[in-house]
Amino acid sequence: MAAITTLPRNEAGIATVIAALSDRFADRLHTGQSMREQHGHTTTSMANQIPDAVVFVTSTDEVAEVVKLCALRKVPVIPFGTGSSLEGHLNAPAGGISLDLSQMNQIKAVHAADLDVVVQPGVTREQLNTHLRDQGLFFPIDPGANASLGGMAATRASGTNAVRYGTMKDNILSLEAVMADGTIIRTGARAKKSSAGYDMARLLIGSEGTLGVITELTLRLQGVPEAIRSARCSFPSVEAACQAVMMTIQYGIPVARIELLDVLSVRAAKAYSKLDLPEVPLLLLEFHGSDAGVIEQSDMFASIAEEFEGQDFAATSTAEERNKLWQARHDVYWASHALRPGAKGLSTDVCVPISRLAECVSLARAKAEELDLLAPMVGHVGDGNFHALLLLEPGNAAEQERADSYLKWLADTAIAMEGTCTGEHGVGQGKRSYVARELGETIRFMAAIKSALDPDNIMNPGKILSY
Amino acid sequence: MAAITTLPRNEAGIATVIAALSDRFADRLHTGQSMREQHGHTTTSMANQIPDAVVFVTSTDEVAEVVKLCALRKVPVIPFGTGSSLEGHLNAPAGGISLDLSQMNQIKAVHAADLDVVVQPGVTREQLNTHLRDQGLFFPIDPGANASLGGMAATRASGTNAVRYGTMKDNILSLEAVMADGTIIRTGARAKKSSAGYDMARLLIGSEGTLGVITELTLRLQGVPEAIRSARCSFPSVEAACQAVMMTIQYGIPVARIELLDVLSVRAAKAYSKLDLPEVPLLLLEFHGSDAGVIEQSDMFASIAEEFEGQDFAATSTAEERNKLWQARHDVYWASHALRPGAKGLSTDVCVPISRLAECVSLARAKAEELDLLAPMVGHVGDGNFHALLLLEPGNAAEQERADSYLKWLADTAIAMEGTCTGEHGVGQGKRSYVARELGETIRFMAAIKSALDPDNIMNPGKILSY
Repeated sequence: MAAITTLPRNEAGIATVIAALSDRFADRLHTGQSMREQHGHTTTSMANQIPDAVVFVTSTDEVAEVVKLCALRKVPVIPFGTGSSLEGHLNAPAGGISLDLSQMNQIKAVHAADLDVVVQPGVTREQLNTHLRDQGLFFPIDPGANASLGGMAATRASGTNAVRYGTMKDNILSLEAVMADGTIIRTGARAKKSSAGYDMARLLIGSEGTLGVITELTLRLQGVPEAIRSARCSFPSVEAACQAVMMTIQYGIPVARIELLDVLSVRAAKAYSKLDLPEVPLLLLEFHGSDAGVIEQSDMFASIAEEFEGQDFAATSTAEERNKLWQARHDVYWASHALRPGAKGLSTDVCVPISRLAECVSLARAKAEELDLLAPMVGHVGDGNFHALLLLEPGNAAEQERADSYLKWLADTAIAMEGTCTGEHGVGQGKRSYVARELGETIRFMAAIKSALDPDNIMNPGKILSY
Repeated sequence: MAAITTLPRNEAGIATVIAALSDRFADRLHTGQSMREQHGHTTTSMANQIPDAVVFVTSTDEVAEVVKLCALRKVPVIPFGTGSSLEGHLNAPAGGISLDLSQMNQIKAVHAADLDVVVQPGVTREQLNTHLRDQGLFFPIDPGANASLGGMAATRASGTNAVRYGTMKDNILSLEAVMADGTIIRTGARAKKSSAGYDMARLLIGSEGTLGVITELTLRLQGVPEAIRSARCSFPSVEAACQAVMMTIQYGIPVARIELLDVLSVRAAKAYSKLDLPEVPLLLLEFHGSDAGVIEQSDMFASIAEEFEGQDFAATSTAEERNKLWQARHDVYWASHALRPGAKGLSTDVCVPISRLAECVSLARAKAEELDLLAPMVGHVGDGNFHALLLLEPGNAAEQERADSYLKWLADTAIAMEGTCTGEHGVGQGKRSYVARELGETIRFMAAIKSALDPDNIMNPGKILSY
């Protein structure tokens, strides 16, 4: 893995802030080792760099209070949602305070007529959708993990149905944030669109806590579709599957999800869930619309699939059958881990123009084999985004080195194909060097913005940028 | 109209830069009065503050060259596309150089398989769509004017079909820009999504030339739908029409356009185009989809309209009939002007949550009557965005004063309804004070970004911010 550096610690400042926070927040301030470890990076084999303390806040004013205290003493603040980020976003390379927002979990207002909702940042995706269910509404972004919406905003998350509904950047009308000096700002209200100056919401979305702490979100909602139809189709090759995806998108079929499992993922899913599937690449689809509309969509896809030698096409609109059809996808994470018990998964995340996808997936497969890496792949292929899940033996340095060289090779390959080294996981610590290569001079202007908005570099230091 | 202030001029710097540009660009550098007047603000009765010279550039490198020259001497640079902006975006309150990008009008690459296109900023919307027609593709953003795509990006434009396809911010994959020091940056390539650091594309989109000059755009395209169906329906009141709109959106009918004409607009269109329409509020709609899909959509809308006492519903899928059905909307700009020959139009542009739209339109109507202003209204009502076109007698100071008080009242009213004072026209000079009220402390952080990226304030000074 990329070397994770530490940054200089402000010992005196940290001690002073911890004392002040302890006075103010009493038993909501934690300095125990286990709590601190839980608040560093825990999701891959990347090193865990723990904060010096964890404080649980319950309001925007409390966030502002903590940030002001930290600003005064130039002590790092690392916002924490559920801890599901994948690139070391939560590590504390200079120590500092982990700001746990999980108790800011109120759904403040559902505006059904306007299809929007106002939430605190600690509300999780599943909590929101459970709350909305009775009103026939849902929030479409689904990154897999039951992440907090604040965290999803901060990392510009997306997931399986971005192909239809976009990413977090497309589904946030406005937000409230606490900036590095403790000022509370609002980027707008509930208008569906606005051209009122710089798009501060979009700047904070994806800024990974390095410019401010998101304390409230106004999200765009969708009506639950009248009908949902799922489909599944096997293909003789990744190329054939990708050709079918490309044509589906070009024909304007408004697929809600279109997921690819490569042969290794299919093999893993078959073994794990005892599924009856041909051991070839698999596409899984979901269509949203009217009763007639979803059948029309899936019929159109079926015709396209036939052109590219799709086999064993199946489709259904009933909920129970849909789940069965998609089981291979639902299980793939654990099924993949079962391919190598005891291994730790490390997920890659490139995204390329869809015309280059088949080539990129094939090269990625060949390279993994060349480097003797076990790497089942799944893809949000409607967007050209796919993940190879490297299954690595903890402590195997030689294998880790091969994995590092694979990560670098894959980033370079995606960039050379006019893609990006990170489609949806963000930069954190893990992708800083790749992003620097991808964006060149642009990084210098990102750094200028960071310096302007956070001159003392207290907001989640060492993420996106290298200091 | 809001007082337009001048800013201090750097006479020596301007003279030096003009001499240098004249050497370098020869007859592509213009200092004649008429060319300079055309490059100031010309679209409303707002004062025209002319630049000192106009330079026509043909490449990104030339843009960088001009910006570097201006940066060295701290001389303003005002990017110019087609001149169709509405809030004084092109004025030169401190003088300086108008950078005319209209000759950078190449469509560099159409990637049909990826549904994207790479264009220079001077390409106009109509030019692009004419170019794409044979390939069954189109670019959906339609602000009315045949604006340049660079200008549309710079002002975060949208228009009639934003309700389905979003605004410029949603349809730009990445861009190239020349920053205030002359550095050329790229914000990404052609991936459909990315989480590679701060969203520099979205920061530049809507920055109105105040942070950099957009020199290339990679745009997301759409396939031309199999079928387009238009519909028209009259309603007894604005309230009833807005209720129908709200329910249409809530039901998830993917309307491509849904436009409201108020009574005065309908009266104007009837008189201008001899249309047979009841003199009541009118909704015009467009549906995109499959042959069966658009009929299903328009049938669903018809049922909703019936619930709200819609009358004279008509729908058609043939091109010629569609144009006839929409004629009232196509003609409304000139028809409105014909209500008061010799008047100059001044368009308002608020956007509110759709649940407040009927109330906002009704109040706006009553207030215009109270202030004795002639103000037909049209709305992109699916987004809660509407325009009152104030028809003002040039030189009538008392009326202008009433118009100014109307503009201020309307901005405050929209903001109080959790909306925005500018849905799609941008800030320019005209809306600076309203945006400052709308965004409060947020403006201070916009100013910090401006200072960081353009420390000498040479990029389109006096727009968005007041200096």
